[in-house]
Formats: sequence, structure tokens, C-alpha cells
Amino acid sequence: MERHLVVIGGNAGGMSAAVRARRGDPSLPITVFERTGHISYGSCGLPYYIGDDIKEIDRLIIYTPEYMKNERNINVYTFCEVTKIDVSNKCVVVKDIKTGKVFKQHYSHLVIGTGASPIIPPIPGIENDNIFTLRNIEDGKRIKYHVISNKPKKAAVLGAGFIGLETAEALRKWGVDVYIFESFSEILPQLDRELVSVVEAELEKNSVKLFKSAEVKMFEPTGDGGIRVNTGAGSSFDVDMAVVCTGVRPNTDLAKDAGIETGIKGSIKVDKYMRTSAPGVWAAGDCCETYDIITKMPLYIPLGTTANKQGKIAGENLIGGKAVFPGVLGTQVAKVFDTFVAFTGLNESRAAEAGIETLSVKIKALDKASYYPGAKPIYIKIVMDKNTGRVLGAQLAGSEGVAKRVDVFATAITAGMTVYDLYQLDLAYAPPVAPSSDPVLIAASAGIKAMKEKNLIS
Amino acid sequence: MERHLVVIGGNAGGMSAAVRARRGDPSLPITVFERTGHISYGSCGLPYYIGDDIKEIDRLIIYTPEYMKNERNINVYTFCEVTKIDVSNKCVVVKDIKTGKVFKQHYSHLVIGTGASPIIPPIPGIENDNIFTLRNIEDGKRIKYHVISNKPKKAAVLGAGFIGLETAEALRKWGVDVYIFESFSEILPQLDRELVSVVEAELEKNSVKLFKSAEVKMFEPTGDGGIRVNTGAGSSFDVDMAVVCTGVRPNTDLAKDAGIETGIKGSIKVDKYMRTSAPGVWAAGDCCETYDIITKMPLYIPLGTTANKQGKIAGENLIGGKAVFPGVLGTQVAKVFDTFVAFTGLNESRAAEAGIETLSVKIKALDKASYYPGAKPIYIKIVMDKNTGRVLGAQLAGSEGVAKRVDVFATAITAGMTVYDLYQLDLAYAPPVAPSSDPVLIAASAGIKAMKEKNLIS
Repeated sequence: MERHLVVIGGNAGGMSAAVRARRGDPSLPITVFERTGHISYGSCGLPYYIGDDIKEIDRLIIYTPEYMKNERNINVYTFCEVTKIDVSNKCVVVKDIKTGKVFKQHYSHLVIGTGASPIIPPIPGIENDNIFTLRNIEDGKRIKYHVISNKPKKAAVLGAGFIGLETAEALRKWGVDVYIFESFSEILPQLDRELVSVVEAELEKNSVKLFKSAEVKMFEPTGDGGIRVNTGAGSSFDVDMAVVCTGVRPNTDLAKDAGIETGIKGSIKVDKYMRTSAPGVWAAGDCCETYDIITKMPLYIPLGTTANKQGKIAGENLIGGKAVFPGVLGTQVAKVFDTFVAFTGLNESRAAEAGIETLSVKIKALDKASYYPGAKPIYIKIVMDKNTGRVLGAQLAGSEGVAKRVDVFATAITAGMTVYDLYQLDLAYAPPVAPSSDPVLIAASAGIKAMKEKNLIS
Repeated sequence: MERHLVVIGGNAGGMSAAVRARRGDPSLPITVFERTGHISYGSCGLPYYIGDDIKEIDRLIIYTPEYMKNERNINVYTFCEVTKIDVSNKCVVVKDIKTGKVFKQHYSHLVIGTGASPIIPPIPGIENDNIFTLRNIEDGKRIKYHVISNKPKKAAVLGAGFIGLETAEALRKWGVDVYIFESFSEILPQLDRELVSVVEAELEKNSVKLFKSAEVKMFEPTGDGGIRVNTGAGSSFDVDMAVVCTGVRPNTDLAKDAGIETGIKGSIKVDKYMRTSAPGVWAAGDCCETYDIITKMPLYIPLGTTANKQGKIAGENLIGGKAVFPGVLGTQVAKVFDTFVAFTGLNESRAAEAGIETLSVKIKALDKASYYPGAKPIYIKIVMDKNTGRVLGAQLAGSEGVAKRVDVFATAITAGMTVYDLYQLDLAYAPPVAPSSDPVLIAASAGIKAMKEKNLIS
């Protein structure tokens, strides 16, 4: 049987697999089918494009189909949607969206990189030209075009996750009044409440109105292109546009139709080699599950960083490698105006799910020497294994100084370090970048103190 | 015999020991003798005081003798110089500098925290009112007063270590033309030449003239308060002031006179509990040696971060603890105008001294997503164990983004991670703070590639 790698989806997971396979096997025919017009773009940059930090959408495009053809000998077909995977006959059915032509493509190896799609809540009236989602290049262009040409005065953002908060910031840059509606009673549930209050204060400072426990019940057109957002109980808000940022779900219809097993949150089940349940079929990226480094439990955390890594593992293994995906800590960071928030590893509730008893500490410390101009506070919470002091997770909020300090925690957690180990670390000090005892060490010291007190009490 | 902790020297090493001992033992009498007028100040902040980033010198003072007395029940005597340690009779001889009075003080436990002093090269004419060293509060005040009142136009800085470079930056802020004279043929010998060239370019951009292989042979007063700097071979430079930043040496006269053993670079020899060779005598800080986490070889790297840690270990152990100082990686970071430079662990030459064969890689990557405004390059060099790929050291230069990334390396090195482990780390990504593949991971990837190529070749 002729060897041919087919990849469904041209973003992080799929393209990483294709590129890695090509690097290891110069002669393998590789074909990528992408249903949109773009591959390999920085979707995390979309809010900054909307906010006009980035002027041209092309800046977000990392690789083009032409580059892949000329430099990597990878055939990429855009506007080509795979409509069926036939695992028995090892072929996919493809529809060329522009011509309507349907054709079959045989594969010896298949990578599913179908990604994820925005969850559209079933709210009456949500189908409206001035209500947007934000996931791909076209979404970004549509929103920015709308903002520039229609000059909306008020906008609703549904969902206060990182994308919702970044979208709110982007709209504020155009002077739009932003109302965020979060259906849950709290935002950023991964994080400690005190840290979240730092983020909420930053929203308030920047005149973003946040409504919690505010489930949108209905969108009503108000005739002039406006939208009335109805949150029930008689409250309504008139806005000029809305952006729905209520999360994503994995694109798994193709896989499910082909009888490929799915797992957590409906994502495609994969083993540590990124193999699916079907022979010769791998998956990578936002369409498939991952697992937790610490608990080894399956997780669905769709992130570009994970997608890239999974793709590389799939690409290496499909040409005969034995690479193992080590799992994730779910490390994330986001900028919310001038406040940064980050976390890695387990919080108390995820540790509890895994049956681990925890002890947590929180500190507030300056990101630079106290006497250095512009020193700003950082809040750090460490979640420890109550019995051993092993660091399980960390949460940070405050100045930009949190952004790479979360990586120190991610490294320490991966290495299995305890707070005692953490406290001994020889970290860098200079007044413009850190106090002589770095906030990471101050947090570790608080952790040790809590472990001692616990032993004195129990 | 009455219990009494005596501490010689009121800066990082000594005060940390005193405070830790107090925390563990509320009733132990503790006396600190400090020969200057200040304890516990941020000496690393002095260049920023001189450069007027920090207006008031008092901002650098972390704790006062009054605070130590009232809040910690620690007696601190400033302007009191210990002139002799009598290890047989367990007492110190103290001279009150202000009154001239000499007295004895018995100790049951002694901590030597005498610190280090600037090395004054034996250059004819170096004794000059307009030639300064920069080590303590008084030095900082003298230099700033001189700059403000005498308005020097030109200054010489001797030595291009971190303090020399920071001093050059501080003087440039007052518009002073700065000439740095480095006697060695290269600056920052810990670092790769390509990374050093980033620092040198930054100096040039900021109109700091750097002369390498330029040993100052003589200072000649030019009559009007000016100084002629003679570097031999007929070249001379007329300046209005000079700052000598040619390193420090440990203050060990007291210890040596008492028969206490010294070790590397003449620093006080200590074991991992921070005990000296004399019973009941500990040492901590810039006066004593430390050792390398990786090679276990003794080192003399006087740093505030190390001094604080050593002091805490000494303080805990002298009241009966068994704390072990884990050694250092010698992690350092410095700001040179808008360029940051950092390193941790072993470079090739230190690894070679320890008999470790190395393999090194260098990369250049952006500190933020390529499309995000203000993304700047970072250069990273990783030094690996050639046989295992274990990360031994890292060197970084570029934007502020190097400052805490060096800590990721320090953590990974301490944990014994290889480049393979490093590459798997789940690090934080968001366009404003990192590219989707962090420079740390790009460096790890280059390391893996080099390990593979080495295996293909050898």
C-alpha cells in the first residue's frame, strides 16, 4: 500500500505533525486539508489585532500553503473540508468548498487536527450580524471591520475567561463601553478568589463592567442594528454589538462518525503516543484530550502550546518513532490591561478530585527591590501536597513579573520539588528585576511555615 | 557558661543569622557589632541611588538598629569594630570607634559576617579625593554628592564587571562621559563572546567608551581636581573623577589572626552547616566560601542572595538545628541600560575544571510573539553534559525577558534536568509575554539537535 500522510486541519496540531514527519522522512507524501483559507496563524494574537496593537492581520500568519509547498514539500489544500474518514478503507472524503467537487484521498497515516469551535449558547436571537465569535482569522477581521466602520459605543462580551477578558480590553482600546456577562457566580474558577479580585479591580479601573451570575436569556434586535441583552429578572442592556467567548468544544464529528473513541469532554481519546483507537490514525491539538503530569488523569485543556507538542509527538511516531507525550500542567498566562494572571498545575479542587490532600499558602510581594522605582506587587498562591510539601500548583496575579515566574513553578512542579526544595533555589537578583528574596522564594518560605504549623497542630 | 550569640558585621550574612537565631530561640542574648553606621541595606541599589532613580539613600536601608532592638530584641552596636577574636577564651575584643573605648565581649556562639571590601589595585596616585570605590552607603553618598556638586564631565570606571557597568550607566544618567578601563582582554568572562557583544553594543549605543586590555598604570592629578588616567604605551585620558570597580576580596584578617582556616580565594572555610574550623564559630556572607551545586567544588561568589541563605543556615544551626546549605549555581542578572544579561550554573571552562565534557548551543529568539509590538530578541546559550544532555549552565542576554527565564534554567539545573526534560516543560504562553514556543524551549530543542548530531558523528 502506498505511503501517504494525510492531515485533517492546518493549524497547530496538524501542521506540527506534518512538519515533524517531513523532517524525519523526506520522501513521505504529505497532504493537508484545511477547510478555511488559512493555516498556521497565531489565533492568540486575534484580540491584539482587534485592539489595533497589531495593524495587519497578515502579521498573525506564520506559514502559508506556498511556504509549506516550497520549503517543506507539504501539499496544503485550503478550503477543502474532509467530510468523512473511512478507517476500514483508509481513505478520507474531501469536499473542495470553492468548486463543490468531492473526491477521495487514500492514506497510510492519518492525523486528525480538526481543532475546536466556539460554543454558541442556545440563546434566542443569537443569530445576529452584530453578534460575533472569535476563533479564527475571519472572525478577527469581521470584528475589527465592524468596530472601525460601525463605531459601536457599547458592547457585550459573553464569558469572562481569558479570551473574553482580552476581547474586552481590545474593545476598550477603541473607546467602546464594555459589559461582560458571566453566567457563573465567579470568574476564572481555576484561581483563588483573592487573586481574582486583583483582576476584577483592574477591570473596574479600566471601566469594564463585569456582571457575574448573569446568564443572557435573550438577544433582541432594537431596530437600528442595536441589540438588547436580556439577562432575565427584568434587567436588560442595550448594546451595539456582542462577542460570544463562552469557550470551545472539540471538533470530533468526523472522528465519531468513523467510530473513533472519544474521551473527556467529548474530545478524541489518544494514548501517550497520540494514537487514536483506529489503526494508523493519530490526533493532535484542540480536538483531542491530554493528561495531567501529576495525576495522570485525562484533561481537556485546548491550548496552542499543547497542540504544537502533541503534533510533534504524532509526527515523530507516525514515521516510526516512539516519542511519549509527557502530559501537561495546564500552564497559562494572560494579560488583562496592566495586570497579568497565570497558573500552573493543580488547584485545590483538582487535587481533591485526584484524592490528594492539600495545604495552601498565599503571599504578596514586590516584583523588584522595594526601593526600585516602579516596583509592583505580585500575589502568589502555592498549593502543596499536605503530607509531603510537594508543590502541586501555583497561581499568580499582579505585574508582568508573574509571566515567567509561573514557569519557575512549572519547572519545579515537573521536577517533583517540595517547598523545601523550592526555597533553596538560587534565583537571580538585581534591584530592577527582583527583590533579593524573589517572590517565588517568599512563597516557598510561607509554604514551609505552613507545613511546620500543620505538624505542630496535627 | 552564659549563652550569648555575638555577630560580627550587620549586613546580609550576619543579620540573617541573628534574625533566624532569634526566631528559633526567643531567650538567647544576641549582640551584633557593626563597624559602619548602617546595617541591612541594599548595596545592590547603590548604582540606582547614584543614577538618581532612587532619590533618598534612606530608601536603601531595610532595617535599622532601633528596629532590631524593638522588634527582634537584637542588640546592634554600630561604629563598633571587632579587633580580635579569641577562640580559646570565646570572646571578642571590640573598639567603639566614636569613643575609642575598647572592651571584651564573651560569646558562646559567634557568627563572622565581616563581608568583603573593594580591591584597590596598587596604582600610583589612586589615593585621590576624586577617585572612589562603591561598596557601602557612605561610598554611594560620596559619589552622588561629588556628581551633583562638582558636575564632572568625564569619568573613568575601572573594571567592567556588573558593578562597573551599572556605575557607568548611573553616571551616564547625569550626562557624564564615561570611559571604562578593563585590564583583561575581554569583559564578563563568565559569558559567551556573542552574548557579551550584545552588552558591548548596548554600551556603545549609550556612548560609554569601553577600553579592553587597558590596565591603568598611573593616576596623575592635573591640578584643577582633574585626573589623568595613564594606561601605559603613551595613552592617557583626562577625567574629572574615577570609580574603582575591580572586584572585592573577603574580609578575613580577624578570622586568620584567630587561626580560623581559610579556603578558596582566601575566604573563610566553612562546612555545609556554615561552621568554621573553630568550635562555636560560624561564618556567613561575602567573607566565606560557598560551593557549587553541580560539581560540589568550593567557590567564592560573593552575592547578597547567597549571604542571606548562608546566614539563615548558620542561625538555625547555632541554636541546635541541622540545616544544610545546598550550595549555589551562582545565578546572576544585571541590567545594562536597556539590555539584560544573566547566567546560572557552569560555563564550559568551569565544567572543564570539574572534568565534565560539554556540548553547547546558542539560539536567538524573540521574547514575545513575533507579531506583538515591542518583541525583542533574547540570546540563550545552554551548556550541556556531552554524554547525558544534562543542562549544566545557561547564559542569557537581551531584553528584560531574560531576567526570570534564567530562573527557569536555575530550577531545571538544580533538578538535574536534561535538555530532553527541558524541552517537555509546559511553559506559559501569551503573545504579550512569550512566543508560543518559549525561547527556553527553543534553546532546549537546539540542545537536543546538537546531542543527536554528536551521536551521528561520534
